[in-house]
Amino acid sequence: MGYSIDLNSDVGEGFGVYKMGGDEEIIKYVTAANVACGFHAGDPMVMAKTVHMAKEHGVVVGAHPGYADRMGFGRRKMVLSFDELKNDIKYQLGALNAFVTAEGMKLHHMCPHGAINQYDEQTCHAICEAVYDVDPSIIIYNIAGALLGKVAQETGLRNAHEIFADRAYMDDMSLVPRSQEGSMITDEDYAIERCIRMVKEGTVVARSGKVLEIQGDTLCVHGDGPKAIAFVKQISDAFRQEGIEIKTLE
Amino acid sequence: MGYSIDLNSDVGEGFGVYKMGGDEEIIKYVTAANVACGFHAGDPMVMAKTVHMAKEHGVVVGAHPGYADRMGFGRRKMVLSFDELKNDIKYQLGALNAFVTAEGMKLHHMCPHGAINQYDEQTCHAICEAVYDVDPSIIIYNIAGALLGKVAQETGLRNAHEIFADRAYMDDMSLVPRSQEGSMITDEDYAIERCIRMVKEGTVVARSGKVLEIQGDTLCVHGDGPKAIAFVKQISDAFRQEGIEIKTLE
Amino acid sequence: MGYSIDLNSDVGEGFGVYKMGGDEEIIKYVTAANVACGFHAGDPMVMAKTVHMAKEHGVVVGAHPGYADRMGFGRRKMVLSFDELKNDIKYQLGALNAFVTAEGMKLHHMCPHGAINQYDEQTCHAICEAVYDVDPSIIIYNIAGALLGKVAQETGLRNAHEIFADRAYMDDMSLVPRSQEGSMITDEDYAIERCIRMVKEGTVVARSGKVLEIQGDTLCVHGDGPKAIAFVKQISDAFRQEGIEIKTLE
Amino acid sequence: MGYSIDLNSDVGEGFGVYKMGGDEEIIKYVTAANVACGFHAGDPMVMAKTVHMAKEHGVVVGAHPGYADRMGFGRRKMVLSFDELKNDIKYQLGALNAFVTAEGMKLHHMCPHGAINQYDEQTCHAICEAVYDVDPSIIIYNIAGALLGKVAQETGLRNAHEIFADRAYMDDMSLVPRSQEGSMITDEDYAIERCIRMVKEGTVVARSGKVLEIQGDTLCVHGDGPKAIAFVKQISDAFRQEGIEIKTLE
Repeated sequence: MGYSIDLNSDVGEGFGVYKMGGDEEIIKYVTAANVACGFHAGDPMVMAKTVHMAKEHGVVVGAHPGYADRMGFGRRKMVLSFDELKNDIKYQLGALNAFVTAEGMKLHHMCPHGAINQYDEQTCHAICEAVYDVDPSIIIYNIAGALLGKVAQETGLRNAHEIFADRAYMDDMSLVPRSQEGSMITDEDYAIERCIRMVKEGTVVARSGKVLEIQGDTLCVHGDGPKAIAFVKQISDAFRQEGIEIKTLE
Repeated sequence: MGYSIDLNSDVGEGFGVYKMGGDEEIIKYVTAANVACGFHAGDPMVMAKTVHMAKEHGVVVGAHPGYADRMGFGRRKMVLSFDELKNDIKYQLGALNAFVTAEGMKLHHMCPHGAINQYDEQTCHAICEAVYDVDPSIIIYNIAGALLGKVAQETGLRNAHEIFADRAYMDDMSLVPRSQEGSMITDEDYAIERCIRMVKEGTVVARSGKVLEIQGDTLCVHGDGPKAIAFVKQISDAFRQEGIEIKTLE
Repeated sequence: MGYSIDLNSDVGEGFGVYKMGGDEEIIKYVTAANVACGFHAGDPMVMAKTVHMAKEHGVVVGAHPGYADRMGFGRRKMVLSFDELKNDIKYQLGALNAFVTAEGMKLHHMCPHGAINQYDEQTCHAICEAVYDVDPSIIIYNIAGALLGKVAQETGLRNAHEIFADRAYMDDMSLVPRSQEGSMITDEDYAIERCIRMVKEGTVVARSGKVLEIQGDTLCVHGDGPKAIAFVKQISDAFRQEGIEIKTLE
Repeated sequence: MGYSIDLNSDVGEGFGVYKMGGDEEIIKYVTAANVACGFHAGDPMVMAKTVHMAKEHGVVVGAHPGYADRMGFGRRKMVLSFDELKNDIKYQLGALNAFVTAEGMKLHHMCPHGAINQYDEQTCHAICEAVYDVDPSIIIYNIAGALLGKVAQETGLRNAHEIFADRAYMDDMSLVPRSQEGSMITDEDYAIERCIRMVKEGTVVARSGKVLEIQGDTLCVHGDGPKAIAFVKQISDAFRQEGIEIKTLE
């Protein structure tokens, strides 16, 4: 039996005249696009263009909802009530869905953005209930090992475990915060080797040296800058050589 | 053969701590709710609550999209490109649709808000294409006799002609601008008599005295204040006495 | 030697078509107006009108800055960096100052709104530095006994201790959270008696029954609804009878 | 007697995580910075940083206010009332002024952004009254020959005529719209020669070939991209060789 992995990337994070990332390039290499929904980033024009681009490249579209905080790019924690968060997520899913429907597609997954990811149990339930109410066939992309995956299953949703090529892990499987030493994996060869091990062996070495069990269904890659794109090509090639098929989650 | 009319009202136009109108009252008397979509008014919490209230009262939900100008309540003209307007409308339809879907309903109609109604041909096409792309079964509510109805039909959409109990007409069937003398019909008995005539005879007397042919499929009523609610009751009673059935458009 | 107190109220918290509070009434009874600055509430039109109204009634104007969260009315905690908060406050002080200057007045004080009041040491320093940088003669209105007053003094700013007629106190002089039992003083006679005691004797009975020492330089009153206005009249009359002069802080 | 010119550039037009232009470079070459005020672009963090940078380079700061339309970058016409525009401008001037004051500077000038520049008489009066109310010593930068300059003088404000190195003129001294053929001067040598002629001889050749009289007090330059910066260096060198002093307007 073969191995396979989905490649996802955050796209559509520009706003008005402001550009962000290399959407036109990265879209060629991924199998899933996480599209910003106009709260932390993106706007109706950017969303229309991004969804159309995904359609043209045969890439499935997922929602990438965030806090209604453009100035902070959704990275600043906001203390919302359960209903406020749930309805904010619903609104964003629906808004994106209009563009997805218009292209004859279906919303494939949901992957929360920024500070929403600092989730506790209540946050996870608000997110999952919003998704379930809009369309229970939407797949939750959760950080591998994180609470969100468990709550998705409890809610009756399918979930996919997201892994990261360039981020180090704590012993509890959370990501080492960007503010800490050693949060990023900068050696590209090691990063690739590590991804292959996560997919094939289901393990990863934490920053502490401890070996953790991890399930990786989808790998998050970035598209900003020529170096990022080159790395995505490298990792794609490495996967193919290792017999890991890059394909959309179904 | 009997007469019938749909009663619609703009609802869900509060925002955060700010209240607007008497949604809880008017929802009991209308057959169609035009729900603000978070651009000129409304927000995810208000939308969730308003759609739920409509569901409970068996009232169909339509979208009431506006310009992204909360400070001006969507009443200030913004010069948008065709695609900007089209995508703004799509976004709003989709956002509302999430709440409608979550209640097990379908988006029934679309009725543009405020300054979008100062429409030329391009504006009408942008609106109708947006609606068509999201769901071609959505009915366009257009001011009776206005260009939007014709464009809706050209686009392949159904449309309903909206009439107003309290607004005077120009000879070209446009509404007398609020800034002008005689724009509002303040005599309630006359207003009711006039509505009945519009529905049963298909005519209305313009401000100039000229008799115009008019088709009225849906009557717009307001819910702000006890006086407005009393008037809606009066007009409902009058319709029943005249054998005009108040019912949802299908 | 006589007693005196400043009466302050939050005003200018409407937005666009949305009204809030009875600014036109309360402005007649207070000596200090805390004007919203367009982030959590208020907008340039409301600010112009409110500042003009204050000028006409001889009421000094202070800034009432909040988080940039209109939907949450600045009541939802946002995790901002020190510089983000400081610059947000500066921006709002400056914006209001344009209207104050245009009326030939000077910004008199600053009183933080909503969730900013859940302050820790860093928040207090960010607020005070922002005020100091814009104009070191601005007086900080702090909840009596709260950290903000101490930090204001350390920063080289004058401060005034704000007391509340209708809010119960914890033993540490913080306000009993609105979500808790007994947070509001609803007996008006007791509320007035309590205010007089705070001003003349410098003590207040906490919810626990413990007698706390308190300094009251300015009393916060509300203007929403006829009942609120009647209470302000009552308390003003009581103060005069007790020989407590109502006057602007200098 | 010698010739002199002020060099101005629009800066501080980033927003949150979004960058715009090469502020750090262009600030070294100009004598006046037009800083966005948080409506069409900019935010409190960007404003603080930009004003500080201007201070460090001895560059005077002017306000660059725009419509409250971030998505459209202030380039989409909004139909505001006289008071709405006036108060929007006041608010932005004040907000920027907080950062300018904090750096021990004074607001030097005001230069309207984007669609506000499509001005009629009412717009000009709203802008000039706002500036006058905030500080009558602020200089209005108007497109050379445009109505705004005349209205500034009528209002009692000083004004400076702004010329453009890279924009072609119509016979009525308005700029050839960007949408039309020949709107941009792309030959750099000709652009420089043309600027020198505008400053020294007070004439410019319109797109039609007609020679127009023009007064140039300040020249607008751009900072986005290495090519733009190189051009600014070239034009600065050319001015020096021609005995045209580059200096701040007083």
